[in-house]
Amino acid sequence: YNLADDKAAGQSLDIFFLLICGYMVFLMQLGFAMLCAGLVRHKNANNIMLKNVLDAAVGSLCWYVLGYGFAYGTSDHRSNPFIGNHDFALTHTTQVNWAISHPEDDPGVDAGGYAGYFFQWAFAATAATIVSGAVAERCTFVGYLSYSIFMASWVYPVVVHACWSDIGWLSPWVGDGVKVENNDGGEGNVAAAWEDGAAILNTGAYDFAGSGVVHMTGGIAALVGAVMLGPRLGRFRDGKVSDTMSGSSTVLVVLGTLILWFGWYGFNPGSQLAISSKADAAIVARCAVTTTLSAGAGGVTALLFRFWRSGCFEVVYTCNGVLAGLVGVTAGCSLLEPWAAIICGVFAALTMYGFETALLMLQIDDPVGAFPVHGGAGMYALIFNGFFVKHDYVEEVYGYPPSSRRYGWFYGGHGQVMLSEIVELLFIVFWVGTNMFLLFGLLKITGKLRVS
Amino acid sequence: YNLADDKAAGQSLDIFFLLICGYMVFLMQLGFAMLCAGLVRHKNANNIMLKNVLDAAVGSLCWYVLGYGFAYGTSDHRSNPFIGNHDFALTHTTQVNWAISHPEDDPGVDAGGYAGYFFQWAFAATAATIVSGAVAERCTFVGYLSYSIFMASWVYPVVVHACWSDIGWLSPWVGDGVKVENNDGGEGNVAAAWEDGAAILNTGAYDFAGSGVVHMTGGIAALVGAVMLGPRLGRFRDGKVSDTMSGSSTVLVVLGTLILWFGWYGFNPGSQLAISSKADAAIVARCAVTTTLSAGAGGVTALLFRFWRSGCFEVVYTCNGVLAGLVGVTAGCSLLEPWAAIICGVFAALTMYGFETALLMLQIDDPVGAFPVHGGAGMYALIFNGFFVKHDYVEEVYGYPPSSRRYGWFYGGHGQVMLSEIVELLFIVFWVGTNMFLLFGLLKITGKLRVS
Amino acid sequence: YNLADDKAAGQSLDIFFLLICGYMVFLMQLGFAMLCAGLVRHKNANNIMLKNVLDAAVGSLCWYVLGYGFAYGTSDHRSNPFIGNHDFALTHTTQVNWAISHPEDDPGVDAGGYAGYFFQWAFAATAATIVSGAVAERCTFVGYLSYSIFMASWVYPVVVHACWSDIGWLSPWVGDGVKVENNDGGEGNVAAAWEDGAAILNTGAYDFAGSGVVHMTGGIAALVGAVMLGPRLGRFRDGKVSDTMSGSSTVLVVLGTLILWFGWYGFNPGSQLAISSKADAAIVARCAVTTTLSAGAGGVTALLFRFWRSGCFEVVYTCNGVLAGLVGVTAGCSLLEPWAAIICGVFAALTMYGFETALLMLQIDDPVGAFPVHGGAGMYALIFNGFFVKHDYVEEVYGYPPSSRRYGWFYGGHGQVMLSEIVELLFIVFWVGTNMFLLFGLLKITGKLRVS
Repeated sequence: YNLADDKAAGQSLDIFFLLICGYMVFLMQLGFAMLCAGLVRHKNANNIMLKNVLDAAVGSLCWYVLGYGFAYGTSDHRSNPFIGNHDFALTHTTQVNWAISHPEDDPGVDAGGYAGYFFQWAFAATAATIVSGAVAERCTFVGYLSYSIFMASWVYPVVVHACWSDIGWLSPWVGDGVKVENNDGGEGNVAAAWEDGAAILNTGAYDFAGSGVVHMTGGIAALVGAVMLGPRLGRFRDGKVSDTMSGSSTVLVVLGTLILWFGWYGFNPGSQLAISSKADAAIVARCAVTTTLSAGAGGVTALLFRFWRSGCFEVVYTCNGVLAGLVGVTAGCSLLEPWAAIICGVFAALTMYGFETALLMLQIDDPVGAFPVHGGAGMYALIFNGFFVKHDYVEEVYGYPPSSRRYGWFYGGHGQVMLSEIVELLFIVFWVGTNMFLLFGLLKITGKLRVS
Repeated sequence: YNLADDKAAGQSLDIFFLLICGYMVFLMQLGFAMLCAGLVRHKNANNIMLKNVLDAAVGSLCWYVLGYGFAYGTSDHRSNPFIGNHDFALTHTTQVNWAISHPEDDPGVDAGGYAGYFFQWAFAATAATIVSGAVAERCTFVGYLSYSIFMASWVYPVVVHACWSDIGWLSPWVGDGVKVENNDGGEGNVAAAWEDGAAILNTGAYDFAGSGVVHMTGGIAALVGAVMLGPRLGRFRDGKVSDTMSGSSTVLVVLGTLILWFGWYGFNPGSQLAISSKADAAIVARCAVTTTLSAGAGGVTALLFRFWRSGCFEVVYTCNGVLAGLVGVTAGCSLLEPWAAIICGVFAALTMYGFETALLMLQIDDPVGAFPVHGGAGMYALIFNGFFVKHDYVEEVYGYPPSSRRYGWFYGGHGQVMLSEIVELLFIVFWVGTNMFLLFGLLKITGKLRVS
Repeated sequence: YNLADDKAAGQSLDIFFLLICGYMVFLMQLGFAMLCAGLVRHKNANNIMLKNVLDAAVGSLCWYVLGYGFAYGTSDHRSNPFIGNHDFALTHTTQVNWAISHPEDDPGVDAGGYAGYFFQWAFAATAATIVSGAVAERCTFVGYLSYSIFMASWVYPVVVHACWSDIGWLSPWVGDGVKVENNDGGEGNVAAAWEDGAAILNTGAYDFAGSGVVHMTGGIAALVGAVMLGPRLGRFRDGKVSDTMSGSSTVLVVLGTLILWFGWYGFNPGSQLAISSKADAAIVARCAVTTTLSAGAGGVTALLFRFWRSGCFEVVYTCNGVLAGLVGVTAGCSLLEPWAAIICGVFAALTMYGFETALLMLQIDDPVGAFPVHGGAGMYALIFNGFFVKHDYVEEVYGYPPSSRRYGWFYGGHGQVMLSEIVELLFIVFWVGTNMFLLFGLLKITGKLRVS
């Protein structure tokens, strides 16, 4: 009997967990594709389909060459809280990092080996593909290809580095004693990059599975794209919204929505990155429950609210309500009580509805509601965390003891949690907004952005 | 090296198993939605899609507030063999119940922690959504919403409590020594609720993954709904079936069927609830094999039988044959030999065919065949178990030693197994039939049931 | 605390891994069905759907009765390097084979218990269903049914036995010391069947997840079928390809492609058959990464190459490029570096493109490109392995030490690896080609092959 072999079972379990969850997140590519196909006019489905396939294909190469290195690459001598600058093309990633569940055994330089790399790729592809629907029916293929490369190689990785890596300037993990020591090579490194123990506001932004990192990033890019492209021809006439542009198939919308909901069980619970310890398993199971309740509450809220406003029960609004509930709970799925997840879903759907209405008033044409669902509910999710993250769960997930009061206002926590969330929100709006403005502006000036 | 940590790996494995299987069962929502979309006329697809999304969304809230408590909630002082009356809104569910694979360590009050709650929710949503196709194209949205809430909050949980909970009056687990002690707090509780050792007929009804609990419950509700709504206008003319109502898309039918088949690998093997012990793993793997063989045999049988009757090879009949095979093996997937699973699938498809023919003769309009597939093959499954459950497997799954002869007639077991199955069958017909008659009747009287 | 229980966790993990991967491979049936539905004309979708469902259903029965026994059945007294001849209808398969990860404990006769049987069935069904698209729109149902039975019962199992079983004449596992002893009952057996240590060319053909075994087998059968059926009426006019036969739906093509990509994460990483040891986990994670990179590179290459040739960005070519990348990396996913996987995908897509062009020039009508994608890229994959399999990985996967130089030419390995791959390639072309020629010829002569 060999103890080392035995420990491997727990560690293999984590690798397996990470891979399966990554596969499910990858399947969200299909969900987005079908959702878009259902929401655009039939004649443009061919075009949008190509963009969705490309996000995964192009993203796989960009993430390998640049993205992962910018997001998570750190070395002892060149660490940087703003951007990674090491480990491009998997040059320094070990195939399996046994440190995931037993960090004391293997102080490697990377956070998850090949399985972790794979999991993070699936997230990058998700962030990129959120935009495709918002620019549907009028963006050139070359324009979209440029965007997709830019997103997966540069814009998204910087956000990830800031919020999730061990030395990111917004990360709650930075300066966090044991974790830093084990993951990026000793305190010397951290000290060089950032003050010891100096997570922002001494807290860091809590964004567990990426309402901000992934969904806001996609959503803000979608908004910039939609604004700079301008509306589809005939979308707004005499200040009114034309009815003739409605989507081609509610069957495809439901197909897309339910696949996304399924994939989200990889996205949210999977973000714990491990399941082999008792605490891991508890967090993972809690994420599955909160994700479900917020999705359900979001769907029911959107259905009823829309019925109140329009007198109709509408499947597209219901689906967008489900998605808003999912986006809304993504940042806090491990940190919220089930009842709080229901409240989260209710207001996420209303937030989505509000942003959707605002876009129509402003005559911004977002054919699939990518900004209201991902940008709007993503921003809301960060604020919601400021109120409702629970002490015990913050301790379980981030290691801050309840005595530190780094939990939600609702429970009497201090306001630094909320403030950190707002800093993340503003950073993402600024970083993604500026970069996408430059990219889409350049494409527009050179006449490569819009067709028809 | 810490032994407790190590044990956690096995327990985490069970949590992971339960969650993944739950995700797959959730995906069956998509399967049912696509199946319905393919079998109704195109113009009504929008309507039916909304109902399918709602089953999951509404179900998530109903199951949280009432359903799970009615199904599994028990306490020392108020246990009840008919209905649960405790642990509503997850108030008494621990996040992770380590008792799943090592009951001696943690005699908690609930059966599976948050992961178990999640898994059971996915089943509840499945039971509810079976009905949507049967009432398609003529049921009001408000009527369906009422049904969906009623099913997930009240009708289905009572069936689950009776057949699957540790103190249910039909459950083979009740009075079963070790299990009872560990799961609901001691023999005192059981004695108060039910006679010691008194599973019904000293045996209990074997319904491993819910041919009765889930599929018959959905199927009987579908029948009552279809009867009380009456047929679609023009479905039957001069005593003949109109041809003009055939479904819109065989592609969607196949999409739905194959997703359901995939999801069934969560449904059937997952019902073991654990995989970490050698016996668990053997049972889980066996379920995967029997499920496959019965599905295949059902599909081939329906194809050939339909060809014999009509001269055509028809994809919709083949798909319904696959589904009948899956429903037919659900009750016994862990208890049947592979060859018996093939026999099971053959007659499940014929049973489905018979019920389908009978409905047409009786001019009952069930557009997707929900009753023949789920109700008919579900009833058949319970009877089939009475004949074919094998001694070794009964011991492995339920703990009854072969000497007790609580196995199938075919192997020389005693008739109490069959009798218990029939009691379950009659109970579900009566309970679901009565409740649904009252609900749909009330809706009909108040004019809220039918459109067009 | 019980050590035996504990070991079970690792072994249960392997069973779980094998089953989940098998479920994902099964889902590829849906991917192929949707891909075909999107690529044939709408009026023929009904017909092709039935064939796809039948492959899984019929395959489940054929694999049980004959296929698995021909593929893996061996006994001490009758072992045979050409074909298995034992263990039909699961008569000698134990339910769980604990030998998977700890072979010293249980020298059973079969390779994976019921879970292994299930996993292999999913592969058999995949091989069979590849053909459906190539013969679409003109093959009779009876003809296809005959083919499907023949493939799953006889043609495919013989290929599996040769390349993957422990005594197959092309297998790298044969005569491999420890493995042989544990899996088929001692050296006596091997000696009787085949010279000791005598893998072909002392090496054996490396085909990790079956670019040859599964995809070439399906692809060659598809080519023979397409040739013997002749083109669809009106496909070629005056030596030109008619435009009027293009597929009905790019949405379905993308749906199918992304489901196939998802399922491939079961197909390739799952082919390690275990994940519980450190080496297993490393191999599995590597497979996920290489599979992703090759798929992405294939998609991008096909997109750009097609754009260069035709001036259009075309989604169908992009999807076929993704699939060619996936097929191309299947043989070597565990044996290639990530950068080599990118190269693999690039040339896989070009190979597919070349074969597609050649088929059109030869006026062979393969409506979905089954031969270019599966046959063409499958052959390429074996050759690519001859160049690029890496020493360390060959040691990890097949146990040959780097000093044996049984790795790719690119790294300075000896040419026997390449030669073995070519022998496998020729064997599959010959075996599948001959058998399918006989079957389709017999059907043609008897007038049962073609409609319309």
